[in-house]
Amino acid sequence: MSCPVFYASEPEFKSFLSEEESFHAHRVLRLKNGDQIHILNGKGKRFQAELEFVDSKKTTFSALNIVEEIKNPAYSISLLVAPTKQMERMEWMVEKCTELGIHSIGFFQSRYSERKEIKLNRLEKVAISALKQSKNLFLPEIKPLVSIREIIPLPTNKKSSNQYVFAHIADPVDQPLFKILQKDTHINILIGPEGDFSNEESTLLIKNNWLPFSLGKAILRTETACIAATHSVHLIHALHE
Amino acid sequence: MSCPVFYASEPEFKSFLSEEESFHAHRVLRLKNGDQIHILNGKGKRFQAELEFVDSKKTTFSALNIVEEIKNPAYSISLLVAPTKQMERMEWMVEKCTELGIHSIGFFQSRYSERKEIKLNRLEKVAISALKQSKNLFLPEIKPLVSIREIIPLPTNKKSSNQYVFAHIADPVDQPLFKILQKDTHINILIGPEGDFSNEESTLLIKNNWLPFSLGKAILRTETACIAATHSVHLIHALHE
Repeated sequence: MSCPVFYASEPEFKSFLSEEESFHAHRVLRLKNGDQIHILNGKGKRFQAELEFVDSKKTTFSALNIVEEIKNPAYSISLLVAPTKQMERMEWMVEKCTELGIHSIGFFQSRYSERKEIKLNRLEKVAISALKQSKNLFLPEIKPLVSIREIIPLPTNKKSSNQYVFAHIADPVDQPLFKILQKDTHINILIGPEGDFSNEESTLLIKNNWLPFSLGKAILRTETACIAATHSVHLIHALHE
Repeated sequence: MSCPVFYASEPEFKSFLSEEESFHAHRVLRLKNGDQIHILNGKGKRFQAELEFVDSKKTTFSALNIVEEIKNPAYSISLLVAPTKQMERMEWMVEKCTELGIHSIGFFQSRYSERKEIKLNRLEKVAISALKQSKNLFLPEIKPLVSIREIIPLPTNKKSSNQYVFAHIADPVDQPLFKILQKDTHINILIGPEGDFSNEESTLLIKNNWLPFSLGKAILRTETACIAATHSVHLIHALHE
């Protein structure tokens, strides 16, 4: 009953699967010409299609139909993270946040950052795999590492449909995310490194209208904070549905 | 300012650290006699103590004082999981759930289980490490693999302070966890294998008064479902504080 699921960014314009997806169709799933598949474009659409010619390098399909579509999601989440020393933890985070549903994941370098480079290619593969597994409709854009200085100043033509928040370890603790969250916006969440933001960075963030929030009393690892924040946004919206 | 944190199950009765913790104090953190440390007993207490004699095998301490204590938590969570094929995913789950806060994590074997053995020792180490990192006060008990048949029948002297729920993939979907959750109880959450519960198992669970719940539209991996369910329980309680 459940069709095998593939990813193709523009199936309406290119009626074939990537080499990687073709290999998967042919060698792993051993699909045959005429088999039905689902294709996610990662931009809100799920298609049904029929395999025309199954091949390890270039599998073609036809009879493309939209079977599920989300045009304008009520809210979306962009995460900006200071990458952890172990790249594996970032791969896990990308996998889990993609499963839960996320719009984009970017990386920044700050004073106490532990890692100064990021393999985007590897993370994109992790995201595609998690997209197919979860059958979500949106693939997060994986954005390259930038300096925190580039992120802090908010766009001057600041849209009211955006909210900007950052996880802050402070005494007394800040408000929890669920208390400050504006529903039905595009929420931008900044998660600092294990060593946290420097005092100067925190001050600058607040001065630039980023809202601090607390993730509770327990001290969460960077990747856990990412998952908890992402899950909170979804859960809070679900509560109000 | 922040004291190094150690774990010892009964610091009031045994005034020394385990060999592993002693090694960590001496060789990794290079602490000295007279240094102040924090000790978590994993049962609701955090102590302050003074290192008496630092040694790689048996570090002793004195001047033990309780600095934080939770006597009776308002609610607690027990998770029962069908372990995934990759043990690494279970280690990650134990780490994340311990960070978020959890009372016990057990494992069961069901019809579509992918793994038939569990290294408890390794998981206990992961939990202790996550406890110290998060500075939570409760260490989850890691329970051995049992058959789902042993879990399904609820205790006959069923305490009203327990709730029993299981993640269920059904069409139409079940109620989300936040709708069925009884606050301030001991909640027992059952998460099935990637291949889900068999029809027979689901029927038996419902017949035995386990409540089915949905974790939303996205299909989450087993370990992600564990984290999402655990985080949901905490967030729902936080919302009502």
